[in-house]
Amino acid sequence: MLAIDPATHLSRVRETSPLVHNITNHVAMNSMANVLLAIGASPAMVHAREEAAEFTALASALTINIGTLSPHWVEAMEATALAARETGHPWVLDPVAVGATRFRRETGARLLALAPDVIRGNASEIIALAGQAGGGRGVDSTDPAEAALDAARRLARQTAGVVAVTGEVDLVTDGQRVARVRGGHPLMPRVTTLGCALTGVVAAFLAGADDRFEATVAALACYAVAGELAGDVAQGPGSFAVAFLDALFHLEDKALAERARLEVDDAP
Amino acid sequence: MLAIDPATHLSRVRETSPLVHNITNHVAMNSMANVLLAIGASPAMVHAREEAAEFTALASALTINIGTLSPHWVEAMEATALAARETGHPWVLDPVAVGATRFRRETGARLLALAPDVIRGNASEIIALAGQAGGGRGVDSTDPAEAALDAARRLARQTAGVVAVTGEVDLVTDGQRVARVRGGHPLMPRVTTLGCALTGVVAAFLAGADDRFEATVAALACYAVAGELAGDVAQGPGSFAVAFLDALFHLEDKALAERARLEVDDAP
Amino acid sequence: MLAIDPATHLSRVRETSPLVHNITNHVAMNSMANVLLAIGASPAMVHAREEAAEFTALASALTINIGTLSPHWVEAMEATALAARETGHPWVLDPVAVGATRFRRETGARLLALAPDVIRGNASEIIALAGQAGGGRGVDSTDPAEAALDAARRLARQTAGVVAVTGEVDLVTDGQRVARVRGGHPLMPRVTTLGCALTGVVAAFLAGADDRFEATVAALACYAVAGELAGDVAQGPGSFAVAFLDALFHLEDKALAERARLEVDDAP
Repeated sequence: MLAIDPATHLSRVRETSPLVHNITNHVAMNSMANVLLAIGASPAMVHAREEAAEFTALASALTINIGTLSPHWVEAMEATALAARETGHPWVLDPVAVGATRFRRETGARLLALAPDVIRGNASEIIALAGQAGGGRGVDSTDPAEAALDAARRLARQTAGVVAVTGEVDLVTDGQRVARVRGGHPLMPRVTTLGCALTGVVAAFLAGADDRFEATVAALACYAVAGELAGDVAQGPGSFAVAFLDALFHLEDKALAERARLEVDDAP
Repeated sequence: MLAIDPATHLSRVRETSPLVHNITNHVAMNSMANVLLAIGASPAMVHAREEAAEFTALASALTINIGTLSPHWVEAMEATALAARETGHPWVLDPVAVGATRFRRETGARLLALAPDVIRGNASEIIALAGQAGGGRGVDSTDPAEAALDAARRLARQTAGVVAVTGEVDLVTDGQRVARVRGGHPLMPRVTTLGCALTGVVAAFLAGADDRFEATVAALACYAVAGELAGDVAQGPGSFAVAFLDALFHLEDKALAERARLEVDDAP
Repeated sequence: MLAIDPATHLSRVRETSPLVHNITNHVAMNSMANVLLAIGASPAMVHAREEAAEFTALASALTINIGTLSPHWVEAMEATALAARETGHPWVLDPVAVGATRFRRETGARLLALAPDVIRGNASEIIALAGQAGGGRGVDSTDPAEAALDAARRLARQTAGVVAVTGEVDLVTDGQRVARVRGGHPLMPRVTTLGCALTGVVAAFLAGADDRFEATVAALACYAVAGELAGDVAQGPGSFAVAFLDALFHLEDKALAERARLEVDDAP
C-alpha cells in the first residue's frame, strides 16, 4: 500500500472540478487547457493586469508560467500571485528557462519572493532559480533531476513550500521529505508543453488538498501513469499527444494501483 | 423536410471559402483555424490596432472573442467591429466569461453597443451580457441554455441581430423566431475552445447568407452532426478533437439529412 | 543519386538538436514547437523586447514570422534579427500576408533590410515582399509558386540569401540556382500553420550547414516526404496533423531516397 494514494487525490479533482486560473505561455495555453479538462478540472487563461488579480479570487488555484514574457504580464503575474496569497488559494510557479536571460532571472526572483506553494520545473530551471551555476539553454533540461536535489531543498525551505523537479525520475521535496516518482514515457519530452500542462495539474490537485507535498506527488504519479498508458498505444509524438489526453480522461484506480511507482524518504 | 437546410449553407461555405477575420483568444487561435479550414473557410488572425480594422475590409466576416483580453486588444476590437459595420460585413461576438470581471463587463458593453450580427455564448455568458444576475465563474456555463432564453431575446432585439446560446441543446433567436438544435456529444465540452471555434463557423456561414438567423441555425446543426459523428469513433477527448476535424471536413448532405435535429418556433 | 541528399541534412539536425529561437505568430506557436521536436530540434519561443535579442545568442538559428503583429513585437523582431546577424547565426523570415496591410508592408520592408538568410513564403507573399502587384488576401496564396520565380530571384539577390516559395511545387533559389521540390499532400494546406512550422524546420536545417541553398532544399524535401507518408494513413485534416508529426519523427533514409523528388537547375 502506498503512503500517498494518487487515486484519492484524482477523485477529489474529478468531484470538485476546480477552476484553475493560468497565466501561462502562448505555446502551452491550448494543450494545458486540454490536459486540465481531461483530468477533470476547469481551466481559465486570464492575463491582463486589468483583471487577472480580480479573476483569481473566483478560482481555486493559480499557476504562473514565465515561458513567454512581456513587461505587462510580469506586472499582472505579481499582482495575481499576491491576490492568490491574500485569498488563501494555492499558486504554482513554473520558471521556464529562468536562467536564460536577465529579464527571466529578475522575473523569477520577484515571483519567488511571493512564496509559491509549489515550484515545478526541470533540473536546469530549479538550479538556476536557486541561484546556482548552470541553468540550461532553454526549456529543455541539460541536467538530471537528481542534480537539482540540493537546490530544490533550499528553495522549498526558502518559500516554506514544495518543489518538484521533473525529469526521467521526478523529485518532490518540502525541504524535509523527498519523494521520487518513476514512470512516464520517452516520447513525453517530444511533445511540447507537457511539462507546462503538468504545472496546471499540480495546481488542480492542490485545490482542497490537506497536504501540498502529497498532492504534488499524487499529481506527478497520475501524469506518469497516463504517460505510460499513452506510450503503450502511440506511434510517435503526434499520436502520443492524442493518446495522453484519452489516458488522462480514463485514468482508473486500478491502473494507478498497478503502475504508480513512488517512494517517499522522510529523512531530511 | 427541414425549413432550414444545413447542407445548402455548408455548400455555400465550401464553394466560396470565405475569409474569416478573427480577433480571438490565445487558447483558441490554433484550433479555431483548424476548424475553419476543415469546414472549407479561410481563417486569418489579425489583432493589432495598427492593422486590424484595415484588414477586416479584405475579409468576408469578422469574429471578436474576449477570452484573453488586454487594453490594446479592446481598442482594436472596437475599431475593427466598427470597420466591419461600415463595410457591411457581418460580425459575431463571443463574450467569453463576460460576467467574471469588471474589465470584461465593460468590454462586453462596449462591443454590444456596436450591434453584432450574431452573439454566440453559453447561457451564463448571455445572461451576464444581458445584465442579469448570475453569469457563471468562467468559461464553463453553470446554467442550461433554456435559462437564457429571455436574456437572448432581449439582446437580439437590442442589437437587431441574432443570439445563439449553446449548450446541451442550442437555442437561436432573432427576437421573434426561436430555433432549438439538438445533437453534439458529451465530450465536446471536454475539448477546449470548441465553442470559440463554433463562433468562427457561424461567421463563415453568415458570409453571403440572406438570413442571419437561418445561417446561424445551419452552422450549429452542422457542428452538432459533426460532433455526433466524431463521438461515434472517439476514445476520449484527445481522439475526439482529431475525429471532429475529420468529420467537419467530410460532412456530407446525407449525414446532415439523417442526423440534423432542429426545430423552429415562429411564435414570439 | 541526388546532388542534394536530404538524409544527410536530417541526420545533422538529429545529432546536433539545434536550439531554434522563434518569434512566430500565436496561431503557429504550439504546432511549430511540435514539428521542431518531431524533426529532432529544440524549439524556444521568446518575443519580448527585454530579452529576445539576448536570448537569440544562445540559439543556433532564428525565425521571425509576422503572422500576428504588434508594435512591441516589431521592435523585438528587428533587434533580434540584428543580434542574429552579429553572432553569425542564420535567420529565416516568414512574411505572412505581407501584402495585406500597410503595417505588414512596412514591417516586411524593415525586416528585409536586415538580410534574412532565407525567406520562406507562398507565392503571393513573395510577390508582395518583392514589391510587385498582387499579394493575395491573407495567408493563403492565390498564385502558384512558379509565378513568383522572378520575385524570388530578385529578393535572393537583394539579400544575398535564399528564397523558398512553397506551394504544390516548391521553388528555392539563391539568385543563381533554382531547385524544385515536389511531393507533399493536398491535406497540408487544410492544417493550419504547417507552412509556418516549415520555416522552423528550414532554420533547424540551416544550423551548422555549409550551404544555405542545399540545406533549405533538404528541409523542404523532408517535409514533402513526411507529408506524403502522413497522407497515406490520414482520414482528414485532424488525423493528418497527427500522422504528420509521427512521420517526421520516424522519417528514414530509405523513405527519403525512394520518395524525395527534387531537381536543381544551375542555369541562372
